Amino acid sequence: MSKKTVSILGVFVGILVLQHLYGHDPRARTPIRIPDILEYRTLKCDFHIHTVFSDGKVWPDVRPEEAWREGLDAIAITDHIEYQPHKDDLPTNHDRSYEIAAPHGDVLQVIVIRGSEVTRDMPPGHLNAIFLESVPPLDTPEWRDALKAAKDQGAFIFWNHPGWTGQQPDGVARWYPEHTELVEQGFLHGIEVVNEREYYPEAHRWCMEKGLTMLSNSDVHAPVNLDYLVRQGDLRPFTLVFAKERTAEAIKEALFDRRTAVYTEGMLIGEERFLRPIYERSVSVLNPSLFLKGRSRAFLQIENRSDVHYELESTQDLEDVTFTDSLVLQGGKTVLLEVRARTDDRSGTRRIRLNYVVSNLKIAPEEGMPVAFEFEVTFEPRAD
Amino acid sequence: MSKKTVSILGVFVGILVLQHLYGHDPRARTPIRIPDILEYRTLKCDFHIHTVFSDGKVWPDVRPEEAWREGLDAIAITDHIEYQPHKDDLPTNHDRSYEIAAPHGDVLQVIVIRGSEVTRDMPPGHLNAIFLESVPPLDTPEWRDALKAAKDQGAFIFWNHPGWTGQQPDGVARWYPEHTELVEQGFLHGIEVVNEREYYPEAHRWCMEKGLTMLSNSDVHAPVNLDYLVRQGDLRPFTLVFAKERTAEAIKEALFDRRTAVYTEGMLIGEERFLRPIYERSVSVLNPSLFLKGRSRAFLQIENRSDVHYELESTQDLEDVTFTDSLVLQGGKTVLLEVRARTDDRSGTRRIRLNYVVSNLKIAPEEGMPVAFEFEVTFEPRAD
Amino acid sequence: MSKKTVSILGVFVGILVLQHLYGHDPRARTPIRIPDILEYRTLKCDFHIHTVFSDGKVWPDVRPEEAWREGLDAIAITDHIEYQPHKDDLPTNHDRSYEIAAPHGDVLQVIVIRGSEVTRDMPPGHLNAIFLESVPPLDTPEWRDALKAAKDQGAFIFWNHPGWTGQQPDGVARWYPEHTELVEQGFLHGIEVVNEREYYPEAHRWCMEKGLTMLSNSDVHAPVNLDYLVRQGDLRPFTLVFAKERTAEAIKEALFDRRTAVYTEGMLIGEERFLRPIYERSVSVLNPSLFLKGRSRAFLQIENRSDVHYELESTQDLEDVTFTDSLVLQGGKTVLLEVRARTDDRSGTRRIRLNYVVSNLKIAPEEGMPVAFEFEVTFEPRAD
Amino acid sequence: MSKKTVSILGVFVGILVLQHLYGHDPRARTPIRIPDILEYRTLKCDFHIHTVFSDGKVWPDVRPEEAWREGLDAIAITDHIEYQPHKDDLPTNHDRSYEIAAPHGDVLQVIVIRGSEVTRDMPPGHLNAIFLESVPPLDTPEWRDALKAAKDQGAFIFWNHPGWTGQQPDGVARWYPEHTELVEQGFLHGIEVVNEREYYPEAHRWCMEKGLTMLSNSDVHAPVNLDYLVRQGDLRPFTLVFAKERTAEAIKEALFDRRTAVYTEGMLIGEERFLRPIYERSVSVLNPSLFLKGRSRAFLQIENRSDVHYELESTQDLEDVTFTDSLVLQGGKTVLLEVRARTDDRSGTRRIRLNYVVSNLKIAPEEGMPVAFEFEVTFEPRAD
Repeated sequence: MSKKTVSILGVFVGILVLQHLYGHDPRARTPIRIPDILEYRTLKCDFHIHTVFSDGKVWPDVRPEEAWREGLDAIAITDHIEYQPHKDDLPTNHDRSYEIAAPHGDVLQVIVIRGSEVTRDMPPGHLNAIFLESVPPLDTPEWRDALKAAKDQGAFIFWNHPGWTGQQPDGVARWYPEHTELVEQGFLHGIEVVNEREYYPEAHRWCMEKGLTMLSNSDVHAPVNLDYLVRQGDLRPFTLVFAKERTAEAIKEALFDRRTAVYTEGMLIGEERFLRPIYERSVSVLNPSLFLKGRSRAFLQIENRSDVHYELESTQDLEDVTFTDSLVLQGGKTVLLEVRARTDDRSGTRRIRLNYVVSNLKIAPEEGMPVAFEFEVTFEPRAD
Repeated sequence: MSKKTVSILGVFVGILVLQHLYGHDPRARTPIRIPDILEYRTLKCDFHIHTVFSDGKVWPDVRPEEAWREGLDAIAITDHIEYQPHKDDLPTNHDRSYEIAAPHGDVLQVIVIRGSEVTRDMPPGHLNAIFLESVPPLDTPEWRDALKAAKDQGAFIFWNHPGWTGQQPDGVARWYPEHTELVEQGFLHGIEVVNEREYYPEAHRWCMEKGLTMLSNSDVHAPVNLDYLVRQGDLRPFTLVFAKERTAEAIKEALFDRRTAVYTEGMLIGEERFLRPIYERSVSVLNPSLFLKGRSRAFLQIENRSDVHYELESTQDLEDVTFTDSLVLQGGKTVLLEVRARTDDRSGTRRIRLNYVVSNLKIAPEEGMPVAFEFEVTFEPRAD
Repeated sequence: MSKKTVSILGVFVGILVLQHLYGHDPRARTPIRIPDILEYRTLKCDFHIHTVFSDGKVWPDVRPEEAWREGLDAIAITDHIEYQPHKDDLPTNHDRSYEIAAPHGDVLQVIVIRGSEVTRDMPPGHLNAIFLESVPPLDTPEWRDALKAAKDQGAFIFWNHPGWTGQQPDGVARWYPEHTELVEQGFLHGIEVVNEREYYPEAHRWCMEKGLTMLSNSDVHAPVNLDYLVRQGDLRPFTLVFAKERTAEAIKEALFDRRTAVYTEGMLIGEERFLRPIYERSVSVLNPSLFLKGRSRAFLQIENRSDVHYELESTQDLEDVTFTDSLVLQGGKTVLLEVRARTDDRSGTRRIRLNYVVSNLKIAPEEGMPVAFEFEVTFEPRAD
Repeated sequence: MSKKTVSILGVFVGILVLQHLYGHDPRARTPIRIPDILEYRTLKCDFHIHTVFSDGKVWPDVRPEEAWREGLDAIAITDHIEYQPHKDDLPTNHDRSYEIAAPHGDVLQVIVIRGSEVTRDMPPGHLNAIFLESVPPLDTPEWRDALKAAKDQGAFIFWNHPGWTGQQPDGVARWYPEHTELVEQGFLHGIEVVNEREYYPEAHRWCMEKGLTMLSNSDVHAPVNLDYLVRQGDLRPFTLVFAKERTAEAIKEALFDRRTAVYTEGMLIGEERFLRPIYERSVSVLNPSLFLKGRSRAFLQIENRSDVHYELESTQDLEDVTFTDSLVLQGGKTVLLEVRARTDDRSGTRRIRLNYVVSNLKIAPEEGMPVAFEFEVTFEPRAD
């Protein structure tokens, strides 16, 4: 008999008598506010996660618990097949981590996806297969056989951390003929553009050029809170999936259809067709008409309802006015954009368009997303 | 081979370059998320504020700046008429603090209301008159004359801190014949149920009995950040005004029509007709149908989109299930309400209603607001 | 001309590039500042911790990592012997969790102690044996045999969570004849006065009466950060051990010698001989001499160099002065204690002693520790 | 009669009933932990501060209150002489801001220094004179006369914000013949190397070359909390003064003797003779002897007792070992420096010295301070 409840859930349950000093029960879900777009739900997903069943540090049911609290919608459990450092204590059993995690996901309504990491030398390196029906068929000597077994189950397969210094000592991702082969055979559908805290611009470029799905995953081994200051807003990397509904099937369909974007450390990476509506559904100008008497200042109030801090840099000077050239639209807040007439003698009403680039919305490697604020200014001259 | 180092230590290592996540311009507005209700905008207002023009510590334009950042919609500047401790340095000029504050309010779109504090011995004590056209006519020896001058300008007049220990040494608010006189003459329309960090239950009761408007104000003298840990969620007290639009006129109309509620230190005080829709527009059950096999647990997920932490206590046991009896619906988060069958042998589907009282929504002194969660439970017996 | 812009708005504007101030590698140790006392080191220890090798949720090497970061000096790994819910996946191996955890403790210089939880029905309930040489000898049907095997290894043995509702449905700890037997046979040396977030005043009393060692332990199963908001100061419960040096041997000696105190949620519980020097080495009055002209105010500045927030309530009025009657000496900060003459006409110099009780330093159940501030006041009468 | 106490101090006084949700009374002093060095006290000072008596936004007694809470030891009140935008409301009275601030400084034991800002076009720009006996003699048309009047009072005089864009549109500080004249006549003793959030490397260089005292000041006009996120560690810039004791006289002596360094946004700037002992008294290696078996890792534990986050970059590779090349010694924490043998076959014991530069300790413009960790490593070969 355990002091704790028999249920695996029991560990996390219990009324905590938290003195008000500390606020509240630590068991709560903090939603990640990134808006739904187009006709899709914007789901936050982490498709690369380890447990004690390979070289991870937690029992599998911890993973949906962490994900629920952090505001994620779906996770894939992807223990290594070939790397089993705990096996002398915990005999290899490839399907168990999913089987243990999934019921706790059900309880919390976090979607848990069965996956596996095919863990080979470069090329082709490490690949995750997710939406598997059974992992053991992938435990086979030849990596081509393993990936074929995954494909035969209808899995979505992606290349992990292509620039990982363990296989690319200079940290630069390299494309091998084997990867071309994989794509051609339908064995490779996506690439991790971000793994942990690393971003691979080469991988970003390949996804754009070769029509592959972009992913961002934590590859977390430890308890998440040991690697990320989650409660202070330091979220793990995750993949945004634009899905027709909040189901495993809809996620799978979206992945094959390349409807993803990538979040890492306050940055969003992806196609403009997704990033633009995210930005536009997050940000509003509250007062789109200003009055300027002489060279006095006026302020646009810009509200950002999302949790992303949009970082804007001006790309163009204007003849009529000076204005704030560098601006952070802080998540969940309203900030001010200052506008000022260049001279005291202007008059009349003009439509103004301020052009910026959002440096942390990357629509291509090294390329931020252009945005603009349009508004009306009425100038009144000042004698003085 | 693992992507991670073979050593168990490697998991925890890694230099993080966390830059943009934490630091930003302190000049930003943090909205206070309390929903609009009925056909009204829910405006957050502080109608009792001092500046250097009486015994306050800041130049008047600081007040709209603070209010804008804190998420307030409107403030009244209410310097003392009779108490002018700075007058040897700063000659008395009753209208100046409003005149200086108002233009900065315009720039930031914070509504600034001209007011004044008539500062007399008890009875009648201190009273604020707001929506004045001119303060000097109130600077007259007889308090009846001062209040008549305010009424003649159409002012909304309320009694400040009725239990203030400076005038009520035991901290208990007392109603004097003079206050009856004031009400009868139309010189008194509301009472501060909260001033600073003090709540006066007697005043709360009087408002209910005598049909007066409830107010909650900071009476702040120092810079707000010296008295409140604003950035950590320790907001000053404010009055919720349910107004037809975000204008001074609509606020005035709402005040005379008693459409207010009171916020202080995480608590809302007011009539149920306002507090109930605030709660209901804040809170949703995300999964209103549970499945219980034997005595296993299941969880309602309860989302709170507002910034108020609703503190719930159960008021009734149920025959079928046990459930969480004490629960904080944390602001901006989703929390779990655990439900469990009392026995292993129940079966069938039942509609369940869990009754709670929200202890920090006070619809009368010492009376929280009752709420309930309704949902369906399907029981399946477990043999064991 | 001002350095600042002429506009009142200018004061508040400016883009801040705050980078290095806020964000860092999450891998750091935050010391818990509670001073060394008498001739001892004050070590912070948690002697009740689970891993996946019984019903815990983390691989054993996570435990010293968490402890190091949280500022602890020593931990005991105490997996259940009899309760092995993971055994179908992870075959029972009682010594392994210690063997895996200890080397990581060595690397981080966290002392890891081999322990085990003897997990039986009440009486005698659950007991931890720590400083074992080998756990398997305790895996035997009779609990008396198990405890004898522990004693034969020189173990320190304590009763866990004596008021746990799983065995004491009303949450009240009960002493059984079996516990008397255990003490008489030298099989029981201490009791958990605190387990998780629960404090058992009965156990506190028993330790005082029966000469048993007081302990406070987390009994943590999940990753610590899921149960405690560690980074916000919500530390797990821990036992303060007053040891001659920072070694396992010195801790063992101190435990048998009853040199402990108990920390839980900002409260310290223990014998006055330990709590008094902790308080006195934490707190200083920076200005022990005040000057009071008439009824003006003066302030003692009280510095607290520890991380404990001492909560003081006055226990005695004085004839000469009024003073702050409720005061929190915030950890790591200096706060003010206001002193004011009762009348305007006092004169002369007097030695004043203000008596308080520190409500969160419990020297017996329901009994805070008395403290005093002594200082000199010089009164000067004020005519007016 | 005011609701508030008559005393100017009264505003800040009062027992706050802060529900534990928010922690504690906001009125507390948070010491800035930067160690005393050599035979000196390390005092934290801000010598450039405005109030409503020129173009500032607060009543003067707010300034020592803010300084006390922020952990400062001394401030100078330095209102503009020539720029008096409030004078129609608040008639010019140059000595009043000091006279109002000083008594509140006395109460809180914050040293308040009488100063003034001589506010002229460039050259010579704005200069502060501090330790004045009387300000009005400086209110004279010719700036040479004003500075002579200051010098005649024994004032310490420094050049403010030499690169301010209001007078140096490109933000680059320029030295004019007038400044040479000032130095030669003994009218200029120091320069602001930092003003607000701006650092002027040219000014840093001039101080080094011309033997002038380095200063860092806030030049704050608003309430400090509106410009700095003080409670989150975003401190205003301040000057470290290495003084023989904590008195105004000792500060003055130290300023004339050039015993200062400069703090801004986590960076310290100054002479190596001061920065080196600050670093050395802050930082300790807790375990100066490591054991490496083969290529396993070991860690130096490096404790930083100060509040400065020292940012280290390695400057040299070693033949025997690899090690962490970039490291932040977080303030108040202990961090790990990883060391690893380059090969599996090394043996013997060697003394190792790791060389770093602390990039945020600037001993000259663009020049960090070199530091090293010395320790012993014992290598044991590993067969594999």
